[in-house]
Parts: sequence; C-alpha cells; structure tokens
Amino acid sequence: MIENKSNMQQYQTLISDALSRLDWAKSPEALYQPIAYALSVGGKHLRPAMLLMAVDIFGGKTQDVMPAALAVEVFHNFTLLHDDLMDKADVRRGQATVQKKYGPNTAVLSGDQMLIAAYQLLEKAKISDGNFRQVTKLFSTMAEQICQGQQYDMDFEKRDDVVIAEYMHMIELKTAVLLATSLQIGTLLAGASAEQQKCLYKFGLNLGLAFQLRDDYLDVYGTQSLGKKIGGDIVNNKKTYLLITAIDLAKGEMKNQLEFWLQPNQAQNPEEKIEAVKDIYHQLGVEQMTLKAIDKYTKLAQKSLEKLDIENDKKQMLLQLADTLLKRNK
Amino acid sequence: MIENKSNMQQYQTLISDALSRLDWAKSPEALYQPIAYALSVGGKHLRPAMLLMAVDIFGGKTQDVMPAALAVEVFHNFTLLHDDLMDKADVRRGQATVQKKYGPNTAVLSGDQMLIAAYQLLEKAKISDGNFRQVTKLFSTMAEQICQGQQYDMDFEKRDDVVIAEYMHMIELKTAVLLATSLQIGTLLAGASAEQQKCLYKFGLNLGLAFQLRDDYLDVYGTQSLGKKIGGDIVNNKKTYLLITAIDLAKGEMKNQLEFWLQPNQAQNPEEKIEAVKDIYHQLGVEQMTLKAIDKYTKLAQKSLEKLDIENDKKQMLLQLADTLLKRNK
Repeated sequence: MIENKSNMQQYQTLISDALSRLDWAKSPEALYQPIAYALSVGGKHLRPAMLLMAVDIFGGKTQDVMPAALAVEVFHNFTLLHDDLMDKADVRRGQATVQKKYGPNTAVLSGDQMLIAAYQLLEKAKISDGNFRQVTKLFSTMAEQICQGQQYDMDFEKRDDVVIAEYMHMIELKTAVLLATSLQIGTLLAGASAEQQKCLYKFGLNLGLAFQLRDDYLDVYGTQSLGKKIGGDIVNNKKTYLLITAIDLAKGEMKNQLEFWLQPNQAQNPEEKIEAVKDIYHQLGVEQMTLKAIDKYTKLAQKSLEKLDIENDKKQMLLQLADTLLKRNK
Repeated sequence: MIENKSNMQQYQTLISDALSRLDWAKSPEALYQPIAYALSVGGKHLRPAMLLMAVDIFGGKTQDVMPAALAVEVFHNFTLLHDDLMDKADVRRGQATVQKKYGPNTAVLSGDQMLIAAYQLLEKAKISDGNFRQVTKLFSTMAEQICQGQQYDMDFEKRDDVVIAEYMHMIELKTAVLLATSLQIGTLLAGASAEQQKCLYKFGLNLGLAFQLRDDYLDVYGTQSLGKKIGGDIVNNKKTYLLITAIDLAKGEMKNQLEFWLQPNQAQNPEEKIEAVKDIYHQLGVEQMTLKAIDKYTKLAQKSLEKLDIENDKKQMLLQLADTLLKRNK
C-alpha cells in the first residue's frame, strides 16, 4: 500500500480491487455484461469502505468480511441503476447509464440480479450463521427503507407543499440509512456491542443527512465537474433543501417570481432560470440556512461518537471520515 | 378444514389465508398498495403449497415455516410483476397488471420491494440460524437462475435458430427451478437428508418441465378461460416447444408457409394465422410429439421418487400433486 494515503483511501483501494476481481457468470451475456459495466464506471466506494473501517476500528478481520462490503457496493449500484431507469437518466458519473446504453428491460433485469447478488455476497462472508442472519435482517430493513425513500422522492415531485421535516425524513431513508447500516454491519461483524453499533449507526445517519444537504448545496454553489452541471436541480425544479426552504420563506412579489420560474415551461433558457432562482435564494438567505443545517447534522454526528468508548486514534479515524465526506467541493 | 378436499387444496387455502393476513406497511401508499393488489389478484399458490406439503411429508411443522412458504409466493409474484413490465403486458389473471394499472415506475419499485420482502419473510420463519443460511443460499441461487431464464427467453425472441435443447434449458431456469427449490426448501426445513432433498428437487424439476410443456400445449389445444385466449403464443410468434419443433421439422413448401406466417406483419387476422399454424403443426405431428415430451418428463418425475424411502401414502401425495399439476386443461 502507498504510504501517506488516508485510511479511507486505503479501504477504497481494497474495495476497488476486490470489485474488479468479482467473477460474474458469463452467460447469458446480456444479463451479466451490464452489471460488470455498471460496477466498472467508478464511484468512490464510500459505503463499503466505511464498513471495512468499522470492522478495523472494532478489531475484526477485514478480509473475512470483504464479501459483505462488496454486497453494500453492489446493492448501492443496483439502486442507482433502477433510479436511473425510473428517472430516464442518460448519464451517470460522466458515462451512459445502463438504461440508456442497453435499454430499459436490461436495466430492470440486470438490476434485479444485482439485488440478488448482494444477498449472495453477504452469504459468502466468513461469518457465523447467527451473524449472517442478523446482517441479512439489517440489510433488508435498509433496502426496504431505501425503496420507501425513493417512493417519497417520486411522490414529492408531484407535490407543491412538501415541508422540511418531510424532506429530512425522505433523505434519511433514501441516503442516510445506507451509510448508517454500512457502519453498523461492520461494527456488528467485528463483534462490538449493541450499544457501540447504535453509536456508529447514529453517527452514519447524521453524517448521511449532512452529506445529502451538502449535495443539494453543491448543486448550486459547487464547482462544475465531469458529468455534473451546476444548477441541474434548479433547472429540473428538484425539491431540494434549498428549494423547499425558499418556497417556505418567499412572500409577496418574491413568491410570485419563484412561482413564475417553477412553471413547467420555464427551462428553455436554463442559465437565466438558474441565475434568477439563485438570486431569490440570495435574498432569502437560503445559502446560509443550508450551511447552518449541514453544520447542525455534522455536529450531531460528532456528538454520536462522544459516548463511544474506544481509543482516541480510532475516534479520529471516524472524525476524519466525516471531514472527507463533507469537505468535497464537487 | 373442509373434508374431501385434496391435500393440495388444503395447503393452498392455508397459503391464501396467511397471504391475506400479511401486514404491509401503510406508507408510502404508492409503494405498498400495488404489492397488496398484485398479491390479491389470485393465482393458485402452487409453489408455497408444495413447500408446505414437503414439510408435512418429512415430519416438519408447517406453522413454523409458513413465512418461508409466503416468501416463495411473494418472490414468484415479483417475477411476474417485472416480467409483465418487460413484456409491456396489460392483463394477468384477467386483471390489469401493475405496470398497466399504476405505471412502469411503480412496477419497478414495488417489484423491488417484493423481492426484498421475500428475503424478510425467510428471515421470519421459526428456523435455526444454520437452516436460515442454507435456505437463503438455495433461494438466491434459484432467484439468479430465474433471472437467467428470463434473459434467455428475451434473447430467444430475437433469434430464429433456437433448438429444443436450448429451450429446455431456458424453461428449466425460468420455470422448473422454482418448483424444485420450493420442494427442496420444505424438505430441508423438515430436517430431511441431503439425499432426500435431492430426490424432491429432481422430482420438482422434471415436474416443472412437464408443467411448462403442458402450458405450451394448452395455448394451442386447451380450453379458453378467463384472461387466456387460445393461440396467443402463435399470434405473438412465441418460441414455444411447439413452434421450435415445427421450425426444426418443416421442409420445402411447408417451411415456406411457416416462414410466411412468422413474418412480423402477419398478425392482422389472428384467427387465420392460428388456424394456418395449427394446420402445419398437425401435418408435422407436433401435437403428438409435445404430448410425448410431457409424458417423458412426467415419468422422469415419478422415477425421481423411486429411491425415496418414505411411507407409501406420502409418496402417493407427491404423485397426486403431479396429477393435479398436469391434468389441468386450461
């Protein structure tokens, strides 16, 4: 391993290597080739890396639980694949999505096989039967919650009256429980107590909320990067933390202006729309309010670790993880 | 229980009752309501009934494994839901499909949740952790094989050179392994030996092959019933045992005739096409050959039970099951 790399980078490299060595069946090619493609397109492997980190921190053997970490990554990519199908998205991570490249039916069936493969990978971990049952139960609960979150997200598209509490519940389900459960599974498999598992789960949950709010924030105030254009959420009227806050706060003339830009036919000149909505955000102080919310959930995450009785350097690894996740600027 | 009912009917009633008592979450309604709808539309619950029968035959407690039987039924309905989505099918069992009634995105996501729910139901069975792991492994293998079968089925639609051996492999994956695995899971959970599990698996596999061939046969030579029109496979050029046999056997003028009817634009007068293709089947002896194949796999199923060391009345239950499955005329 290369020295001076952060712990997260080392775990991410381990996952990347193991993922590329996964042996998918060869036939039928039309089922497995899109799976290999979807997993090869990249991504940062944050979630399985977090699982491995938790295993390490609590004294477990990372090599024994590697298949469980891969299960989390394959599952995460399954959700992206089916989300892209439902959104009719053409591009992800700067590359064609599976539904665009291979068609919607392939996205359905290869996605299904990825979900099944995630359970198969869990089964391959060198863990006791009792742990396997517990992990499978946690995993299924998380998977169900992510389906719920995706459904709420789709429901919100058709509603004008979504409030922040509903939004926070949605992103908890859709985004945060996966980070929380990845950490909890690692903690459990290392043999840590129920109390310690709960701490790591809470840490992951609050971190996940801050992470998603920062994602919303960066869509408007971030740096443009490959495959991600600034203001995409604004153009698509996506109900983000920022937009819901603005809808809630805007009164009088500003309310009329915002409603004007939210009309379905106002995306003909995207740059103009982005500037106009950003101006409304500015006047309402939405940027500062979002940063404040990110800070609140970051502090809650840090607080979740206070009760945790582990060595300081291990606690530092987790705090550094939070830093890594929340300091990205694209 | 009503007397004089066959054993299968008693198990089917047990499943039907337990299925209607399943407590789906209430929110988000758009996720769970379509699941409850899909499971309420009926079906004969053959597969979970077979699981319960195997448990009974080998001395297990059916009430303890009921959730595992329901897992098989929920999983089966998940496959139908996603198959209907991929086929853009509007009607199943005489009712609107989920993709027709609620739209394709609902079919994707509610289907995903059904697959997750199947694993959750397995976890709820009153079985040891060791058995849970074994059953989950069998279940995932079966689920993967069914995805493979569905992919081959879709691949075959685009090919003109499918041979019978490929077709038999496809229906083994798509249809037969689910019957075989349902019986094996029941046998395993009742504590029977690996040898006995293997016998039941083989019995189910051959029964499943005969069952699918009979399904192909009944599309052409069966009695019309609710939601099923005679000759649908012929109209849609579906690569069934009958059509593949006919393509293989037809020579000269008859080959030209068959190719004529298989052209994409020949479904304008469906009745005429059905009669013409039936006539070709008649001249080639396809009906008799199909009946012979059904008989072959039925006998192979019966033979799978020969080595099985159980009381005669229990063996009779299994033979009667084969009768029930293969004697239906629609």
